[in-house]
Amino acid sequence: MTRGVEIITIGDELLRGEVVDTNSSWLAARLLALGLRLERVTSVGDDFEPLVERLREAAARSEVVLTTGGLGPTDDDRTTAAVARAVGVELEPDGAVLEGLRQRWARAGWTFTKNNEKQAFFPKGATILENDHGTAPGFLARTASGSRIASMPGIPAEMKPMWEEKLAPILARELAPLPALVRSLNLFGLGESQMDALLVGLLDGARGSEGACEVTLHTKTTFPENRAILVVRPADRTDAAREGAARLLAALEAEARVRLGRSVFGADDETFSGAVVRALRTRRARLAIAESCSGGLAADLLTQTPGSSDVFELGLVCYANRMKEAVLNVPAEVLERHGAVSRECAEAMARNVRALADADLGVSVTGIAGPGGGSDEKPVGTVHFALATASGVRHLARSFPFERQRVKLASAYTALALALRHLEDKWPEGEDLLEGRWAVRRDPAGAGRGGPR
Amino acid sequence: MTRGVEIITIGDELLRGEVVDTNSSWLAARLLALGLRLERVTSVGDDFEPLVERLREAAARSEVVLTTGGLGPTDDDRTTAAVARAVGVELEPDGAVLEGLRQRWARAGWTFTKNNEKQAFFPKGATILENDHGTAPGFLARTASGSRIASMPGIPAEMKPMWEEKLAPILARELAPLPALVRSLNLFGLGESQMDALLVGLLDGARGSEGACEVTLHTKTTFPENRAILVVRPADRTDAAREGAARLLAALEAEARVRLGRSVFGADDETFSGAVVRALRTRRARLAIAESCSGGLAADLLTQTPGSSDVFELGLVCYANRMKEAVLNVPAEVLERHGAVSRECAEAMARNVRALADADLGVSVTGIAGPGGGSDEKPVGTVHFALATASGVRHLARSFPFERQRVKLASAYTALALALRHLEDKWPEGEDLLEGRWAVRRDPAGAGRGGPR
Repeated sequence: MTRGVEIITIGDELLRGEVVDTNSSWLAARLLALGLRLERVTSVGDDFEPLVERLREAAARSEVVLTTGGLGPTDDDRTTAAVARAVGVELEPDGAVLEGLRQRWARAGWTFTKNNEKQAFFPKGATILENDHGTAPGFLARTASGSRIASMPGIPAEMKPMWEEKLAPILARELAPLPALVRSLNLFGLGESQMDALLVGLLDGARGSEGACEVTLHTKTTFPENRAILVVRPADRTDAAREGAARLLAALEAEARVRLGRSVFGADDETFSGAVVRALRTRRARLAIAESCSGGLAADLLTQTPGSSDVFELGLVCYANRMKEAVLNVPAEVLERHGAVSRECAEAMARNVRALADADLGVSVTGIAGPGGGSDEKPVGTVHFALATASGVRHLARSFPFERQRVKLASAYTALALALRHLEDKWPEGEDLLEGRWAVRRDPAGAGRGGPR
Repeated sequence: MTRGVEIITIGDELLRGEVVDTNSSWLAARLLALGLRLERVTSVGDDFEPLVERLREAAARSEVVLTTGGLGPTDDDRTTAAVARAVGVELEPDGAVLEGLRQRWARAGWTFTKNNEKQAFFPKGATILENDHGTAPGFLARTASGSRIASMPGIPAEMKPMWEEKLAPILARELAPLPALVRSLNLFGLGESQMDALLVGLLDGARGSEGACEVTLHTKTTFPENRAILVVRPADRTDAAREGAARLLAALEAEARVRLGRSVFGADDETFSGAVVRALRTRRARLAIAESCSGGLAADLLTQTPGSSDVFELGLVCYANRMKEAVLNVPAEVLERHGAVSRECAEAMARNVRALADADLGVSVTGIAGPGGGSDEKPVGTVHFALATASGVRHLARSFPFERQRVKLASAYTALALALRHLEDKWPEGEDLLEGRWAVRRDPAGAGRGGPR
């Protein structure tokens, strides 16, 4: 077993709470897939001496130290100098990088200052990692004892491609870790505890099969989605072991999909929005949406996917009752007798937005997002949905035990789920749309943990 | 100067990249305001021995160690036992907590298992921090050398109130730090570099005045908003020093507001959405929105504020041109001659959505979010906006150098900014709506850093 990896994120802004560090989480998932073991993540400030000390300690105990941040041109960017000191070498300018920076500035008609030059200096002997998306290159330095310190910019849009295209290939080649095979199944409409229950025993028998692969299963919640993540590590470096691991992963994925059923909308990087757009495209169906309590979030969610304009016809956000009548032609009688948050209103909204847009599908959402507006009969979180198609209208009611923004989010997802499951023939007549407990689960922990997770 | 504070976030999920740690950033900002100095943040896994070692090291060098995570009932929740070991005491059950948990489970009709009992055990001598929003209480333990280790749950909805209501008051009383006065000015429509330039020299002369208060200024970007954060620390514990610090902060804030102008929409926790809703309410104006490329995000943004239903009449998301004609009555001739992404179309959309909703204000957005759909004449990021009022229609065009989701977000903000600045009389005839460089700034760093920050 080799020594592990550490991440050090650098910047005073991290210690003042002005920035949430998302880099280390992103890198952690990549290290797992690459087969390297992350042991520790540390965030430190810009002060030079403590930074050198942290780098020295980390390099002494770990095989690889990854840093993000502190590579910019300003005086408080001290990572490069600190790494040079920790490694025990001087800083040296790189002629090609310097010339590239000069040319870049000249093209822009800007004055090239001494500070800008700083970004062309690197610890002597380090491998330069080019930055195709910004000005500050990264680098990979080596200590006398053979540890590596690799420094990347803190801006995620620069760091991520630098990792993928420059650094990860070098580490994979030099350290030859055993890359793990990872498959994420992405779910909507099933609570985390239900997901856990359905997956109990999935790995029984898998461990030790296929040449003693190492197999793990994790779950992850990003409200309102859940993920089940399978990780299979081959037993050794042979092709046979790798193929065995791939077979095992495929078998486990197939079994997990059977157990989890229609809640799985995609795998790995597939988004919920992308799944809905794909289903609409496959069935050559065009969608119209009428929203009340979700306030435009269903339309926003759908249009996060490029090309959604091919399948999305019209969105209406009728916050005021008067608009439900005037624009959506919801009969005044429905609003008077049943109220805007009712099955009858949801059905009229879905039917009429479909007709108004001359679309194939119409979906509607009307409910109480809170914190105000609730009553004993219709508490905050009460939401009615409907789906209108050529063959009629279907209805769904839910009671979401969330605060405002989560009621909006759960409502937007559920509205699109009506369309998705209809298109995929996964909403049989007489069955509920979502797994029951997603709507009703409460545990004794109170509001903070209440509801689906 | 006392020794500092460290945060340790605990959980294997952090090292697998399944969770982004937002707790430490949140706590960092609170520590700053409380007057405690955060030195380091570390994320570690659930393994017992390394966890004990990290806690010991941290307690040896820091006055306060805050931990989050690992307080739950399951076997991999080991924080409590690790703290007890690090401090050198046994675990002891707390009768009152145990009884409370038992009753909670009984009320829910659940079986109280041995695992659940675990949450009623604490390091001997620790102060228990009740959890009003979940099952696992936190605690504050003390080492022989006088350092403190305070452990809180990892779930933000439980951790935050525990910090605010239980732990922060104890630390404020026992450590008597010098709380800093913090004021954040929240901006939209001004790039970070412009904001920096306008604030140059703001603190000159302030340092050392009012009894040598300590004064700092930071900036923070959360796209597309920017923040300027003033921090004033009183020179000592006297009332006079505190009052002096408050005067200094007020004077600096006033000067900063003059320099930054109308881009400042609020202070501290005030949101952009909240500012728009407040302005509409103050002027008793009702708004209607017609969106194309922002895809419902402007409506979603507005409705993030509770009570927005009082001022928001109607949102239309007309993705298809056919809908712009059929629902919004944009003349076919406008679409044919000028296209959907044009001044003429934006103006017709704003005028007609205002008329359709019988609202006081109508705003519109039509543009190209990308990645497809651009042309030489109208590249991706081209967006036209209009505002219709009783006295006419005003137009704005922008070219946003962003990827899809940021074009949507910038468009939604800009659409609402039209209404906000009109209502606040901050959009004089003949003047641009946003500061020029917000739209046109490009730097030589390429796409990754291009555009406003």
